[in-house]
Amino acid sequence: MQNARLSAALERIASTRPLIHHMTNLVVASVTANLTLAMGGLPIMASAKEEVEEIASKSSVLLLNIGTPTSEQLEAMKLAGFMAKELKVPIVFDPVGAGASRFRTKAANDLVRELQPSVIRSNLAEALSLLEEDARILGVESLEDDEEAAKRAAMELATRFGCVAAITGRVDIVSDGKDVGRTTGGSPLLKSITGSGCMATTAVACFLANEAPIKAAALGLSLIKTASELTLEVKGPGSFQVALLDAVYRLRGGL
Amino acid sequence: MQNARLSAALERIASTRPLIHHMTNLVVASVTANLTLAMGGLPIMASAKEEVEEIASKSSVLLLNIGTPTSEQLEAMKLAGFMAKELKVPIVFDPVGAGASRFRTKAANDLVRELQPSVIRSNLAEALSLLEEDARILGVESLEDDEEAAKRAAMELATRFGCVAAITGRVDIVSDGKDVGRTTGGSPLLKSITGSGCMATTAVACFLANEAPIKAAALGLSLIKTASELTLEVKGPGSFQVALLDAVYRLRGGL
Amino acid sequence: MQNARLSAALERIASTRPLIHHMTNLVVASVTANLTLAMGGLPIMASAKEEVEEIASKSSVLLLNIGTPTSEQLEAMKLAGFMAKELKVPIVFDPVGAGASRFRTKAANDLVRELQPSVIRSNLAEALSLLEEDARILGVESLEDDEEAAKRAAMELATRFGCVAAITGRVDIVSDGKDVGRTTGGSPLLKSITGSGCMATTAVACFLANEAPIKAAALGLSLIKTASELTLEVKGPGSFQVALLDAVYRLRGGL
Repeated sequence: MQNARLSAALERIASTRPLIHHMTNLVVASVTANLTLAMGGLPIMASAKEEVEEIASKSSVLLLNIGTPTSEQLEAMKLAGFMAKELKVPIVFDPVGAGASRFRTKAANDLVRELQPSVIRSNLAEALSLLEEDARILGVESLEDDEEAAKRAAMELATRFGCVAAITGRVDIVSDGKDVGRTTGGSPLLKSITGSGCMATTAVACFLANEAPIKAAALGLSLIKTASELTLEVKGPGSFQVALLDAVYRLRGGL
Repeated sequence: MQNARLSAALERIASTRPLIHHMTNLVVASVTANLTLAMGGLPIMASAKEEVEEIASKSSVLLLNIGTPTSEQLEAMKLAGFMAKELKVPIVFDPVGAGASRFRTKAANDLVRELQPSVIRSNLAEALSLLEEDARILGVESLEDDEEAAKRAAMELATRFGCVAAITGRVDIVSDGKDVGRTTGGSPLLKSITGSGCMATTAVACFLANEAPIKAAALGLSLIKTASELTLEVKGPGSFQVALLDAVYRLRGGL
Repeated sequence: MQNARLSAALERIASTRPLIHHMTNLVVASVTANLTLAMGGLPIMASAKEEVEEIASKSSVLLLNIGTPTSEQLEAMKLAGFMAKELKVPIVFDPVGAGASRFRTKAANDLVRELQPSVIRSNLAEALSLLEEDARILGVESLEDDEEAAKRAAMELATRFGCVAAITGRVDIVSDGKDVGRTTGGSPLLKSITGSGCMATTAVACFLANEAPIKAAALGLSLIKTASELTLEVKGPGSFQVALLDAVYRLRGGL
C-alpha cells in the first residue's frame, strides 16, 4: 500500500531527525520549513556566505532553490554546494523559473553543471530550459502539461547530468536515465497555491536523508500528491495549504 | 450586482493568465503570490537587478512595494520601472511605510516622480507623506481614519502625479483627480492581519492586466472588502487570513 | 487566574498600541508581524541600515532575531541597537541557531555583549552557546530538554549579561539572575511548527512595551503556552499555526 510505504519512510525520518539545509526563496521559506518539521526532519534556512559551508557540512541534505535569486545568494550556493559535494552530502536542486530570465537560466545551468545534484526537481518548462530546448514559460509557472515531453525531458536530464530527474505536473515523472516512473492523482488545488513545487522539492530532500535518490524522488512526489488527496474540509487555496501540512503530519502517524 | 462584476473581471484574469511581476517586501511575498494565483494570475517574485528588466518586459503589470526596502532593491525597482514605463507595462505602486523614516519617504517620493505609476495604493498616512503633508504615522499602520481627508488626498495625489489614487481605510477611496468613489463595508479583521493593504495592491495589479486604471483600482479594493465579508468560520486573524484567500477563489467561481 | 492576567496585560498593549521594531529572519517575518497585530501592537519590519536608527528611535521595543543572518543585517542590528540603548528603548534578543555555525555563535555573542538586551529568549542549546558551553545543537532546534540545565543556564545568562533570560522548552524557564520561575504545559505541536520560539520572542517584546523585563518575559512565554492549549479543531501543524493566532486574539478579548 502506497500510504504504508510513505508512513514507513516518514518514520525513518522521524527517528533519524536529519538536518535539511535549505537555501531557498523568500516566498516559500516558511512553508518548506514547516513541511520539513511535519515530515519529522529539522530545517535550517541559511544563506550567508560566512556560514553556509559549515552548515552544509553538518547537514544530511543540501537543498538549493533559485526562486528569488541574487548574485550573492548564488555565490553562497556554490560555496555550500562544493562543500556538500566534497563531503558527499547529497544535493537536491530546484531551478525555479529557469527560462524566465537569462540570469536565472544561466544560474540554473551553472549550478547543475558544477554541483552535480543527486536529484533535480522541476516543472517541464524548467527542465526544458536546463536542456536548452525551447520552452513556453511564463513566470515561474509551467504552462505545458505534456506527459510524453516530460518523460523525454526527465530521461535526457538524468542522462546528461548523471542524476535523478523529477518533473511534476498533472502526471509526475521520475527517471534515473534508464527507467521512467509516473504518478497520477493529486488535488487540482496544487496548481492554485504558491510553492507546491518547492514543497515537493523539500519532500524529496527529506527522504534523501535515508533513501537512494530514485526512491527519495518517487517518495517525495508521491507524498505531496497523496497528502493533497487527504486534505479535509477544503474551501479554497487558503484552507488547502493548511490542510496539506496537516495531512503530511497525519501520514507520518502524528495526531 | 457587485459580486457578478467581480466574478466577470476575475474570469477575464483566469482566461488571460497575466504575469504579475512583484517586487515586494518579505513579509507579504507569500500571501500576495497566493492571492495572485487565487485570482487566476501568475505571480513572479523577482528583485535581482540582473533580471528585473527582462522580467518586467515580459509581464502584464509591474507591482512595486517598499515594505522592507534596501537600497539595492530600490535601485532594482528603478531599473524594472524604467523598462516598464518604456514598454507601457502599467505600474502599481505601494509606498508602504512612507512617513515612517526619511529613507522610505524619500524612496517613495523618488519612485512616484520618476516612474509615474498608473495606480498608487496606500493608506491615508502614506498618501499624506507623498504629498509632503504632516501625517500621524506609527510604523506601517495609518492611525488616521478620516474620510474627508482621504478624499482630498486621493484627488490631490491623482492630480499631482497623473495617476489613479486608491486609499484604503474603514472607507476606501478611489480617485482619478476628477471624480472620487467610495466603498464601505469589509470585515474589521482586515486591520488585524499584516498585509491586507498589500493584498489590495496585488488585487489592483491583477485587474490592471485587463482593465483601465480607475476600474482596476475600484475592482481591487472592492475584491478585498467583498471577500472579507464572505469569510466563513472565522475565529480570529489566523483563520481570517485563510478564509480570505478561499473567498477570493470562490468569487472567481472555483470550488 | 492566569488567563485574566494575560488578558489584562494584552489590554494594556491594545490601549497603547506600541510600535515593535522587528529585525528578524525571513522565515518568521509574516507570522510574527501577525502575532504582534493579534496582541494589539503595531509591527514594523525594517532592516536597511539607512533607516533602522530612525525607526528604532520611534519604537517602544526593538527585537533582534538572527535566524537568517547576513553580515549586512548584523551591521544594521548594531546601528539600531546602539540607538535603542542610547534612548533606553528596551531590546529583546533571540540568538536563533547560535551554536549551529561559528558565524552565528560569534554574531550572537557580539550582539549580547555590545547591546545589553533587556531580555534574551532562546532554547537551551542557544543559551549554552552564549555561555560558551558545549551544546548538542542540530540546526536551529535544540535537542536538549533538561530542566535543571535550563535553570542553571538561565541564572548564569541573566547574571553574566545583566538581563532577564527566558529559555523555552518542554518547561519554560525565566530568570533575572536571582530567582528562577518555571512554566509547564503547552501543546506538543509547538515543536512541530517553525517559529514557535520566535513567536515567544515577539510576545515578550510586545509585553515589554508596558511591563518590566521579568514580568514581560513571564507573560510572553505564558501567552504562547496558554494560547497553544486553547487552540480549537486542530488536525496537525497547519491548522495549529492558524489556531494559535486565533487563540491569542481571543485571549485579548477580540471576537
